Amino acid sequence: MKFYLILFALLLLPAVATAGVAGEAADGSCVSCHAEKTPGAVNIWKTSAHAGAGVGCAECHGDDHGRLEKGEGLVDHTVCGRCHAEALNQHLAGRHAIALHAAWGCTRNHPEILPRRCEFCHEGDTAVAKVKVQCARFLKQSPEMGELGCNRCHQVENSCASCHTNHGTELRIVRDPAVCAKCHMGPDHPQWEMWRTSMHGTLYYSAGPEVGPSCQTCHMPAGTHDVSGGLTATPGNAILAEREFAAQRDKMVRLCLACHAERFARQELERGDAIRTQSLALTGEARAIIADLADRGLLDPMPADRPPHPHAGHRLVLDGQMLYEDISHIERLYFKMMKFDLAKTIKGAYHQNPAYTHWYGNAELKMDLVDIRSEASRLGRRPGAASGAAGPESGEDFPEPEKALELLRNQYRRGTISAEEYEEKRKQILDGLLEMK
Amino acid sequence: MKFYLILFALLLLPAVATAGVAGEAADGSCVSCHAEKTPGAVNIWKTSAHAGAGVGCAECHGDDHGRLEKGEGLVDHTVCGRCHAEALNQHLAGRHAIALHAAWGCTRNHPEILPRRCEFCHEGDTAVAKVKVQCARFLKQSPEMGELGCNRCHQVENSCASCHTNHGTELRIVRDPAVCAKCHMGPDHPQWEMWRTSMHGTLYYSAGPEVGPSCQTCHMPAGTHDVSGGLTATPGNAILAEREFAAQRDKMVRLCLACHAERFARQELERGDAIRTQSLALTGEARAIIADLADRGLLDPMPADRPPHPHAGHRLVLDGQMLYEDISHIERLYFKMMKFDLAKTIKGAYHQNPAYTHWYGNAELKMDLVDIRSEASRLGRRPGAASGAAGPESGEDFPEPEKALELLRNQYRRGTISAEEYEEKRKQILDGLLEMK
Amino acid sequence: MKFYLILFALLLLPAVATAGVAGEAADGSCVSCHAEKTPGAVNIWKTSAHAGAGVGCAECHGDDHGRLEKGEGLVDHTVCGRCHAEALNQHLAGRHAIALHAAWGCTRNHPEILPRRCEFCHEGDTAVAKVKVQCARFLKQSPEMGELGCNRCHQVENSCASCHTNHGTELRIVRDPAVCAKCHMGPDHPQWEMWRTSMHGTLYYSAGPEVGPSCQTCHMPAGTHDVSGGLTATPGNAILAEREFAAQRDKMVRLCLACHAERFARQELERGDAIRTQSLALTGEARAIIADLADRGLLDPMPADRPPHPHAGHRLVLDGQMLYEDISHIERLYFKMMKFDLAKTIKGAYHQNPAYTHWYGNAELKMDLVDIRSEASRLGRRPGAASGAAGPESGEDFPEPEKALELLRNQYRRGTISAEEYEEKRKQILDGLLEMK
Repeated sequence: MKFYLILFALLLLPAVATAGVAGEAADGSCVSCHAEKTPGAVNIWKTSAHAGAGVGCAECHGDDHGRLEKGEGLVDHTVCGRCHAEALNQHLAGRHAIALHAAWGCTRNHPEILPRRCEFCHEGDTAVAKVKVQCARFLKQSPEMGELGCNRCHQVENSCASCHTNHGTELRIVRDPAVCAKCHMGPDHPQWEMWRTSMHGTLYYSAGPEVGPSCQTCHMPAGTHDVSGGLTATPGNAILAEREFAAQRDKMVRLCLACHAERFARQELERGDAIRTQSLALTGEARAIIADLADRGLLDPMPADRPPHPHAGHRLVLDGQMLYEDISHIERLYFKMMKFDLAKTIKGAYHQNPAYTHWYGNAELKMDLVDIRSEASRLGRRPGAASGAAGPESGEDFPEPEKALELLRNQYRRGTISAEEYEEKRKQILDGLLEMK
Repeated sequence: MKFYLILFALLLLPAVATAGVAGEAADGSCVSCHAEKTPGAVNIWKTSAHAGAGVGCAECHGDDHGRLEKGEGLVDHTVCGRCHAEALNQHLAGRHAIALHAAWGCTRNHPEILPRRCEFCHEGDTAVAKVKVQCARFLKQSPEMGELGCNRCHQVENSCASCHTNHGTELRIVRDPAVCAKCHMGPDHPQWEMWRTSMHGTLYYSAGPEVGPSCQTCHMPAGTHDVSGGLTATPGNAILAEREFAAQRDKMVRLCLACHAERFARQELERGDAIRTQSLALTGEARAIIADLADRGLLDPMPADRPPHPHAGHRLVLDGQMLYEDISHIERLYFKMMKFDLAKTIKGAYHQNPAYTHWYGNAELKMDLVDIRSEASRLGRRPGAASGAAGPESGEDFPEPEKALELLRNQYRRGTISAEEYEEKRKQILDGLLEMK
Repeated sequence: MKFYLILFALLLLPAVATAGVAGEAADGSCVSCHAEKTPGAVNIWKTSAHAGAGVGCAECHGDDHGRLEKGEGLVDHTVCGRCHAEALNQHLAGRHAIALHAAWGCTRNHPEILPRRCEFCHEGDTAVAKVKVQCARFLKQSPEMGELGCNRCHQVENSCASCHTNHGTELRIVRDPAVCAKCHMGPDHPQWEMWRTSMHGTLYYSAGPEVGPSCQTCHMPAGTHDVSGGLTATPGNAILAEREFAAQRDKMVRLCLACHAERFARQELERGDAIRTQSLALTGEARAIIADLADRGLLDPMPADRPPHPHAGHRLVLDGQMLYEDISHIERLYFKMMKFDLAKTIKGAYHQNPAYTHWYGNAELKMDLVDIRSEASRLGRRPGAASGAAGPESGEDFPEPEKALELLRNQYRRGTISAEEYEEKRKQILDGLLEMK
C-alpha cells in the first residue's frame, strides 16, 4: 500500500513535490510563491469552488513544507473526505474503492473467494499485507509501465483526482460520460465505446442528457459515488446469491423505468444474464482443453520450462492471475478469450450494443475456440506426442498404460478427479496391464 | 417471419406488453393508467409531435386490451405507414426493408441469386417461408444472442423505432449521423467509424452539416427512406448490370457535385470500383486454397468430422452462409478476410478513409493471406499428408494415382472442373497406371 | 516527384481539371463559367477569406487555361507560400514536409541514416531521384490503393489542402483536433484515438480548449506549422543526440507548465522514454529470432522461394522497408509488433492513455512475442529441420558440422558476427570435423 501511496504522491501532487522553498501555512503565502513556480495549479485553483469558499493550499496539502518536500503531504481520498464525507463513504462502498488492491482485480475468476474479507489481503489478524495478493501481471511490468499502464487507472481507489482532476472543481467535467472513458475503454472492457454507439449514447449526444442516459445516470444515480449499485455479479462474473441478486436487480430496474416498461427492462437484463452464462461455458471449454494438454505434457513450452509465475511458480495458471507473457501460444489464445472477448460479449449485452455483443464479443469467443481446438490438435500431432486429438474427450485414444497412469496422476493433482476416482481408474489400468502380460 | 414478429412485439412494445388492466379505447383512458404503469413511455409521447397532433396510444397500438396483452398489438412499419405512406414506400424500396430476411444478408456472396424474387424466400407460389433460407450463423445462436446480437440491427426491416425510437418523434435524433452507428459499426462494416474520421465527418463536426456531409446527406438525400440509392453493387459485392450501374453511379455523382467537380467525383468512385475488384481477387485466392485443401482431405477437422452445417450438412461452406464456429483454423482466417477485411477495404475506399482502406483493410487482407498460405503449407506437411505445399498450383506434386483420382473426383463434385475435364484427366491417370504396371 | 505531382493535380484541382473552355484571366470570367461547371468550388470560395480579400481563381491556379487543362496549374504548398511565407517555412522545417518522400517514412528503423541529406533521396550531386528510395510497401500496391490508401495522407507534404480543404479558409476546421484524425488514427499510429480518451481529450470536450489541450496546443503551439517541435526521437524511434534531445525536451516541457509542475512533466515524459527503450527491446528479441531462423533456412517460405522484395530482392527484410505481403507467418507476426504494437505502446505512454500504453500496446507486444517464440519452435520441429527450438540461444543443439558451417556463413553475411569471429568459429568446426574422422 505504501508503495502505491508514494507513487501516488509523485503523480498527483506536482504542486507540492516541486515546491522548493520553506513556506508558511497561510494560503496567501503559498500562492505568492507558487503563482510563479507552479502557475498552472494556482490558476486552476483560483477559478475553483475551493478558492471561492476560502479553501486554500494548506487546507488540503498541510502547511509543513518540510513534509511536503518529502512527498508526505498527500491529498488522497481521506483528505477530500474530511469535507466530503458522504461522497467518500459512498465511494468506499463501491468497486472503485478496491481498484488498487490488485488481487481483487486479478482474482476476478475466483468465484469462491470473498474478496472483501480482511484475510484476503492481510496475513492472519494483522495489518500486514500478503505480498502474493498482488497482481501477477503487474509484478511482471517495469516500474514505468506499472505507473503509466496500470496505476493510472487503478489509482481511482484513493485518488479523487482520477476523475475530478487536480485543483479544479468543475462539475461539467465529471458529469461528462467521457471522463469514464479514460479507464473504461479498450480491449479489456470497452464500456465507453459500446455505450457511445448504443442507442443510449446516441440519444445522449443528439437529444441531450435528459433523453439519453450516460454512464452516470445508471451507475451513479442521484450522484452517488458508489458505482456498484445494480450489478448482479462480481468483477469475476460470479453471480451474486439469490437475495442480493434480486435486490441489486430491482435497484437497476427502477432506473430503467424512467423510460422503459418494467417487463421490457427485466427481460433485456435477463437476456444479458443468459448470455453471460453461455459465454462462460465457451471459456470453460477452452480452459478444459488447455488443462488437459498440460496434464498430458503437451503444452509448448510446458510451465516447467519457462520463467516461474510470480505466485504459482511452475504450475499452470488459467485464472485471474494468468499472465500474457512467458506462456504458450494456446494459453495466449485463451487469455484473449477470457480477458477481452468475454467482457465484450457480456458487457455488450447489458449495454445493448449489438456489434459488441455479437461481432466483437460472441464471434471472437467462438473463433478463438476454433483456433484453440486447432492448436490442441496440432500439439497432439507433434513427433513424440500421443496420437489423436488432444481434446479432453479423447482420453480413450490414449493407449499406453504408463502414459495413462501419468495423465491420471496429473488429473488428480489438478483436482479434476477425486481420490476415489483416481484409485479406481488406476486399479483398472494396472489390472489391464497384468492381463496383457 | 412470425417468429421475428413475436420477438419484435416483446421488444418494441413495452407499454403494451406490460399493461395489465382492461382498457378503453380513448387516449385519455390509456394515459390515465399508463402514466403510472409506464411513465417513461407516456412522458416521451407527451412531448412528441404525435401528442400535439392528437395521435394517441390507440391510434398505433389499437384499443383491444386483450389482444395487446397477448402481444398482438404490434406497431410495425405498416402501422406507421398508415400515415407516413411515402416514407414507408421509400423504405420498402431500399435494403433496410430486407434486413430481417436473413438469407439476403447471408447470401451476400451469391451474385447469381436475385434475392428479391418471391421464390428466394418462399416455397413455390405459396406464402410458406423456406426454412433453409435463414442465416446459418443465426441458427447457431442462442435465442438471447439472436435477439441482442442479431435482431437488434436486422429488425430495421419492420421497425421504424430502430432509428426513430419508441414514442418520441424528435427529428434531431434521426438526423444525427450517430443514429446510424448503432448498427453500421464494428468489425463487419465500420461505416460510422470510417466516416467519422474521414474529411467528410471531420467537416461535419467542425464546420456543421452544411459543410460536412453526413450519412443522411449521401444515403438519404432529401430525406428519402430508400437507403440504397447510388450503390453500384449488391451487399454481396456483385456488381450491377451495366445500365443499372450507370444509373446508380449518376445518382451518387449528382450528390457529390454540391462540393466537388464531376471529373474528380467519378475518378474517386472508380478508384473504389478498382479496389473492390482487386480485393475480391485476394479473397478468391484464399478461397481456392481452402477448397483445394478440402478436396485433398487436408482440413483439420474435415467437414465430415464436425457438427453439421445448418443448411449444407457436411459439405464445405465458404460463401455467405459460412459459419465462424465448428470450422477449422484456416477457414476462420478466411472468415475474417471475407467478412471483416474486405468490407473495411472497399467501404473505406468509397468513404475516403485512408486508414480503413489501407491499414484496417488492404494490409489485413494481405496479412491474412500470408497466414492462410502458411497454414496450408503446415497442413500439407502433416504426417500422412501428401508432400509439398497444398496450394492449388501444386497439383503436380501429387504423385500417387489413387490420391490423384480422389482429388479429381472432389474437384468435379465441387464444380471446379467440368464433366469432360474430369473424364479426360481420369483417363490420363488410369492410362499412366496401366503403363506403370 | 513528378508522378506525385500529377496525382496531386488530379486530386486537388477538380475545378481546374474539368474546366473545358478557353478562359480569360480575370476572376469574374472564371467564376461566370465555373459557377455552372463546378458550383461547389465556387460557392465555397465565395464565402472564404480569399474572396473577401480579392484573391480569385487565377491568383492561385494561374490564367493559362490551356495549361490548366493539362493538369499543370497546380496549387501546391509553394503557391500558398507566395502569400503565407511564414507558415510555409514552418511547415518545411517539420516532418509533414517529408511525408511524400516515402523512404523517410519507410526507413524509420534506420537510425543510422540522416534522411534530410540530399544524397538520401538524390543520386550523387544531381537532382535525379533515387528510384529505390521509394517505399517498398507502396511499390507493391495498385495505383488506386497507392492513391486512396497511401497518398491521401502522405500528400500533406505538398498540399496545404490536406488539412485546410480546397477553396475554403475556415479556421475552425483546422483548429479542430479531429482534422488531424484523418491520418493520425488507425492501427499504425492511433494518436487521435488515444488523445480523445486521455484526460487531455476528455477535458477538451467537456471543459473546452482553454482547459483541455488539443493536438494543436502541444504540436502546433502558437499556430506554428512546424509540427515536430518537442519530439525527442525520429519517426524510426532513433533517439536524438544529447544536446538536441535536451533542447526539444525543454521545448515540450515549457508547454506542459501551463497546467503542470515541471518536475511532474519531466517525470512523465521520462517514463515515456523508458517505455520506448523497453518496448524496442521486445521487438529486438523478435527480430533476432526471425533472423536466426532465416540463417538456418527454417522460414516457410524462405526469401529465396517467394516474389522478390522491390529493393532487396531475395534478402530478408525486417527494417522499415519490410513488406506485409509475400512473407512468412512469423514475419507477419513481427510486422504487427513493429508497426502496430510498438507505436501504440510508445505513443500511448507519451499521450498518457493507459489503455493504449498497456492493453493495446504492451500486452500485444508481449503476446505477439509469445506467438513468435511458439512459431519458431514449430518451425524447428518440422521434418527435416534441426531438432530443438529454433531460438537464437539454441545454437548448441545444432550438431551436424555442414549445417553449422552454413549457419555461421549466414550469420557472417548478415553481420551478426565479425570476420574474425567467423574465421575463428569456422576453424573450430573444421578442427572438430578432422578429429571425428
